Amino acid sequence: MKPLYLKRGEDKRLRTGHLWIFSNEVDVNKSPLRDFEPGEPALVHDAAGRLLGTAYVNPASLICARLLSKKALTPDRSFLYERLFAALRLRETLYSEPYYRLCFGEGDFLPGLVADRFNDAVVVQIATAGMERLKEQIIDVLDELIRPSILLLRNDIPSRTLEGLERHVESAIGPAPDDLPETLMIRENGLTFAAPFIRGQKTGWFFDQRDNHALTRPFAAGARVLDAFSYAGGFGATAAAAGAKSVTFLDASETALDYALKNARHNAPECAAAVLSKDALDTLANLREEGAAYDIVCLDPPAFIKRKKDAENGLAAYRRVNELAMDLVADRGILVTCSCSQHLEAGELRRIAVKAAAKRGRRIQLLRAGAQGPDHPVHPAMPETAYLKALVLRVFRSA
Amino acid sequence: MKPLYLKRGEDKRLRTGHLWIFSNEVDVNKSPLRDFEPGEPALVHDAAGRLLGTAYVNPASLICARLLSKKALTPDRSFLYERLFAALRLRETLYSEPYYRLCFGEGDFLPGLVADRFNDAVVVQIATAGMERLKEQIIDVLDELIRPSILLLRNDIPSRTLEGLERHVESAIGPAPDDLPETLMIRENGLTFAAPFIRGQKTGWFFDQRDNHALTRPFAAGARVLDAFSYAGGFGATAAAAGAKSVTFLDASETALDYALKNARHNAPECAAAVLSKDALDTLANLREEGAAYDIVCLDPPAFIKRKKDAENGLAAYRRVNELAMDLVADRGILVTCSCSQHLEAGELRRIAVKAAAKRGRRIQLLRAGAQGPDHPVHPAMPETAYLKALVLRVFRSA
Repeated sequence: MKPLYLKRGEDKRLRTGHLWIFSNEVDVNKSPLRDFEPGEPALVHDAAGRLLGTAYVNPASLICARLLSKKALTPDRSFLYERLFAALRLRETLYSEPYYRLCFGEGDFLPGLVADRFNDAVVVQIATAGMERLKEQIIDVLDELIRPSILLLRNDIPSRTLEGLERHVESAIGPAPDDLPETLMIRENGLTFAAPFIRGQKTGWFFDQRDNHALTRPFAAGARVLDAFSYAGGFGATAAAAGAKSVTFLDASETALDYALKNARHNAPECAAAVLSKDALDTLANLREEGAAYDIVCLDPPAFIKRKKDAENGLAAYRRVNELAMDLVADRGILVTCSCSQHLEAGELRRIAVKAAAKRGRRIQLLRAGAQGPDHPVHPAMPETAYLKALVLRVFRSA
Repeated sequence: MKPLYLKRGEDKRLRTGHLWIFSNEVDVNKSPLRDFEPGEPALVHDAAGRLLGTAYVNPASLICARLLSKKALTPDRSFLYERLFAALRLRETLYSEPYYRLCFGEGDFLPGLVADRFNDAVVVQIATAGMERLKEQIIDVLDELIRPSILLLRNDIPSRTLEGLERHVESAIGPAPDDLPETLMIRENGLTFAAPFIRGQKTGWFFDQRDNHALTRPFAAGARVLDAFSYAGGFGATAAAAGAKSVTFLDASETALDYALKNARHNAPECAAAVLSKDALDTLANLREEGAAYDIVCLDPPAFIKRKKDAENGLAAYRRVNELAMDLVADRGILVTCSCSQHLEAGELRRIAVKAAAKRGRRIQLLRAGAQGPDHPVHPAMPETAYLKALVLRVFRSA
């Protein structure tokens, strides 16, 4: 393996445990990046020549290298086996049923590799050239560990373009993508959900919200629930199963709403379920005009801040949607407000809620601050891996 | 009620929802603080004379006024009833058994008033002159709402001195303090705990850790557990009841350890329970010398940073204890590390863990970030009310 040398002082972040090396941190005189093939492994050294560990390199990417280990090792099948075995053991310890994110990239010390498990179906996303190089070994190890009947590579994620990788969906094990079943079954918090498989968002289900879906339970008995940006209804159907009187799902996607309705009816036949298939922001504004009130409002919008440069517009969108929600919560009702924007830190979502409450003359209590579930482990030296926030607020109509 | 005028610009924090007014923010020319009796209610106005709400004043305190409402109102029995009724409703919704913090001061919009409920015993702490003035009404309302057989005023907290209040313990309902039962029974997470009542820390039990006590459960089966700074054993006994093979409680207080042992034996007769009654830091260092290893280590130290000026020493103590713990966790074991220091923010505890891991050559995953339970609601405009942090880390012995 070739050496990769960092400039003086650029080892500091790595020594705290961070895994990323940016191209401007590399001493390109001693180790020109153009000498590396995309995905090629390298031994990383600081300016004084001390070994920092093993990484894979992509000269085409701004994040030009990602650390795999602090030791010198060959990123081979046995390395992958050890890491994926440790990842699987954690999930088997956490969950009694085999539905979870099996590998969360950097959080499982496997930068660029995501895998979700739906019983005997595994959906993999490879985000980097370094992981792409290990594709066959990844498939082989997952086959040994899980023996899946379906192993789908859903490599249609936009970030692959930054790595110079093609975007496509392919089957490694099982039927071709076009012949896959339309619906995916998921078990979560003791309930059964259906979600669109190949036409769905992400890998089909948002396992990261598992714990947060359950946050409404103590408040659900007899409640009127609004599940905004519902996707397949994880929040609303969980509240319905916990005794909600009615649930309204709001989403722009008809397909998502079909599933949400199905999930509510399956898990809670007694609950009155309805859908609103329109732009969520417009519909929230209309509901406010009509004077609608809900005992529980769940807001799980898409990432309004996808890149740092979206921050201003994104913040405005979070503010707007939270202000609307404040008006839709009945007195002493519950607002669960989420953000999956990596670039919006937890304190900022709290401040957005505080400002929205002040603006709308509401008094609020913060009951819980949720995050992505433990099958999405945060790499604590990489705050960017802690992307999901969920606040449970109790809203008083009087200031 | 007399008016209290703020200086120009000093209304900003209050308008976001914060409840505290500092003495240097008051326009003492227009409204001299010395004109107010300790605890006297006042109508707060901004520099332009616009009403900001109703507060109580204490001219002797740095926090010279605390807002009770954004409206003009008389802080009387019916005001207290409304607030305490709302607080009780929340807890009754959250918990199936009557053991909880019933009122968490600012978090329940009743600054200076804390009440813990142990079934038919209520323990109250009044921290401010404003609440002291309402003492008889507080007792009266709690009697109406709860009908307790014991209502103890545990007003021996140091902060009362800052408010010019005496420190003492008295019975409002039920036996005199000396005649109270020695032991308090608590139900938590489906388990039964005993804790010292009148000789115990705080009000007798740390309800704020309820959810965090349960965080070890998925990892407990067959585990060797170290519960450091155990008090009455909330963490260790919960792990024991979830299947731990052994649990060692470590605390400086013999009384606390007696209860911890009792709680482990009662909830998990099969688990091997032991105690170490010594200075926790010394003992952790000795255990490391001996090469001891535990599958689960829980660290719940007292607030090492009680006041801002303790920050440097306190941070050093947190670092030291977390470094020791990193060495005591077996490979792929779990470390639950807590801080109840209001002045240590959540990100800082994460950074302490990251540094401790780097220093000891450990790789860590952050599985969950816990906080005080929802019976200690955070006032989201007052970050200082979010004081408790608990991180669940998975520790790999290899870097």
